[in-house]
Amino acid sequence: MSDFRQQALDYHEFPVPGKTAVCLTKPAETSMDLALAYSPGVAEPVREIAANPDNAYRYTAKGNTVAVISNGTAILGLGNLGPLASKPVMEGKALLFKHFANIDATDIEVKHRTPEEFINTVEAIADTFGGINLEDIKAPECFEIEKALIERCNVPVFHDDQHGTAIVTTAGMINALEIQGKKIDEAIFVCMGAGAAAIACMTMLVKCGVQRENVYMLDRKGVIHTRRDDINEYKALFANNTDKRTLQDVIKGADAFLGLSGPDVLSAEDIALMADNPVVFACSNPDPEIKPEVAHEARQDLIMGTGRSDYPNQVNNVLCFPFIFRGALDVRASKINDEMKVAAVYAIAELAREAVPASVLAAYPGVTELKFGPEYVIPKPMDPRLLPNVARAVAQAAIDSGVAAITSLPENYLS
Amino acid sequence: MSDFRQQALDYHEFPVPGKTAVCLTKPAETSMDLALAYSPGVAEPVREIAANPDNAYRYTAKGNTVAVISNGTAILGLGNLGPLASKPVMEGKALLFKHFANIDATDIEVKHRTPEEFINTVEAIADTFGGINLEDIKAPECFEIEKALIERCNVPVFHDDQHGTAIVTTAGMINALEIQGKKIDEAIFVCMGAGAAAIACMTMLVKCGVQRENVYMLDRKGVIHTRRDDINEYKALFANNTDKRTLQDVIKGADAFLGLSGPDVLSAEDIALMADNPVVFACSNPDPEIKPEVAHEARQDLIMGTGRSDYPNQVNNVLCFPFIFRGALDVRASKINDEMKVAAVYAIAELAREAVPASVLAAYPGVTELKFGPEYVIPKPMDPRLLPNVARAVAQAAIDSGVAAITSLPENYLS
Repeated sequence: MSDFRQQALDYHEFPVPGKTAVCLTKPAETSMDLALAYSPGVAEPVREIAANPDNAYRYTAKGNTVAVISNGTAILGLGNLGPLASKPVMEGKALLFKHFANIDATDIEVKHRTPEEFINTVEAIADTFGGINLEDIKAPECFEIEKALIERCNVPVFHDDQHGTAIVTTAGMINALEIQGKKIDEAIFVCMGAGAAAIACMTMLVKCGVQRENVYMLDRKGVIHTRRDDINEYKALFANNTDKRTLQDVIKGADAFLGLSGPDVLSAEDIALMADNPVVFACSNPDPEIKPEVAHEARQDLIMGTGRSDYPNQVNNVLCFPFIFRGALDVRASKINDEMKVAAVYAIAELAREAVPASVLAAYPGVTELKFGPEYVIPKPMDPRLLPNVARAVAQAAIDSGVAAITSLPENYLS
Repeated sequence: MSDFRQQALDYHEFPVPGKTAVCLTKPAETSMDLALAYSPGVAEPVREIAANPDNAYRYTAKGNTVAVISNGTAILGLGNLGPLASKPVMEGKALLFKHFANIDATDIEVKHRTPEEFINTVEAIADTFGGINLEDIKAPECFEIEKALIERCNVPVFHDDQHGTAIVTTAGMINALEIQGKKIDEAIFVCMGAGAAAIACMTMLVKCGVQRENVYMLDRKGVIHTRRDDINEYKALFANNTDKRTLQDVIKGADAFLGLSGPDVLSAEDIALMADNPVVFACSNPDPEIKPEVAHEARQDLIMGTGRSDYPNQVNNVLCFPFIFRGALDVRASKINDEMKVAAVYAIAELAREAVPASVLAAYPGVTELKFGPEYVIPKPMDPRLLPNVARAVAQAAIDSGVAAITSLPENYLS
């Protein structure tokens, strides 16, 4: 681990600090180049944009740019370490945007005293970008922040910790439940954790067929039920009218467990209580709610997912966010709405059912087979089909739901 | 002109919109690369920065990044066209930062209702960057904005329209006055225009030896004098205790004219009234206060400068801003103070006195000689010696004046 730690620090420090830089897409060698790029030539696109703001998409980089914005209040699993400490994560996200979807992402770390100040700051700079990816903002403020920014900004605003997680988790769950022979609208869900990601995941699962009364969500104090008076309005959405109070009460007979809480809160004994052919997504990172070895030892009939790359079925946001923004940007969607998110869910889920080309296998040394089944319910991050499949589904959903400025996709889009 | 207009629009539109993109400085090909760049490896630099904010310079791109920020209230000479319309200019500035000084610049356009909102926004995001270049913000708000941001930000804040212009103008004036055999502390100055750039230029000239009582500044209403009660506090710095009221009153016997106003406000008759061997910098762009042909026809003993690249002695901010930031970033200066600005003035002025290598001439087809004299008082923008000479002088001044975190320059710095 110490070796990996040093390797991670070296990766960030050498040969230059950080992970991204700016590069030029136009010539800047001759006097004429500079006269076109800056004074006097630049006055022409200025005039065109002043006459029609849409021309910013024609003459500037706006249409391919996403701001990755954080306040550092919930960095990875490390907590509230402040905006500057979140910078490596935001730059990392920018790297992923570029690598997976050729999107030019800029990180912005925001210092603020109140959520309103954060909202005002992001709103003030939003027009610079084609879209805004919010990141590592703690709950419950993240809900208020995202809601306000969606209302006030002209460009898509997407809190990846909520919706990216929700989309990928839901895609994997749909597949896992099907393999286990369970109907999504009958499955009993236990969700351990009641933060932003947990609430977003269960909300998306409900959109995709899970019955709200079949959901038992737990926070640090136990089951969230209708008689609790210590819960915020977001948790209240999942307050269950039940007498069950503990994890042990609800895990008994449950079909699916989703962990977005902390390490080792689920025991082999708990898993033994679940219904036949259960699904367990233990997504706490780096240490899951239950170790896959322990879980499989307890149950042979289990499908297991984690947030880790060293086990099968990694639930990883990178399966979604580069592509949902690619699709949204390409049709100039004014927002990323539920239709687009659901389209992303099914595009990701369907990709896992398709035969995996050898090129994908080659990216994973040691992996000899990827075939739809208990060990492969969700695509791998380095599957190049994610880009066209997910982006096209998202773009088409934007068009169909009336939020796109560009209303037809080229036949050969991203292919 | 119509051809150039179309060429400028095409340059901005094709093959991709805009002029800059993001590129990766680290590998992102394998699972291991991604594990180092993002989760779980990125947690290591996060922890290091949380423990010591200075580590952001070690593990992120912060130290080589400048934000080019505008509100679009004074775009080029086109006026207040709003933040989005300023985007091509800010992206152009980013292109120049990269091309001339290998600085990674990000444009940010800010929408706001009051200067205070603008200040709050920039302050909130400032820590993301190694420095902040303010641009195209109208006077007098720009003074209040820059002052507040310098006080509130931990990184250098520099309003280029003021100080970049002032530094380059002063460098050229120092040389022109010397060639004309005039002492800077005796020369009579007429400054046509009383906006941000004009006030900054005269302030810098005073720092470099011009006597304040020898300065006559004019706004739209004529000479700014001590009995006027319609001037803001910034113009008041140059209110002259004089009975002279018009351009004609003050141009008579003047040694130097600086125009930062508008086209064709200075006539051949006006120039005829100036002292022997005068200096005229007519910097209104694209149409100067007097056409060089007209001026030279009126006075054989004139040294003339403009803002245009198609005449000798182009007063161009690009001689300064990439290099003043290069120097400031390289020693992690907390601000760009007067000492650093004055160092830039003299570094630029001195470079014009040095023999010009053939490589510089080669960049200017049609230019057969560049030799210190009336037609060459200021270096050419594509002179590669600007980078080491100006940046070194600025960095050393930052060290000497105690605002640098890094207090020694490598022997071979930028050479």
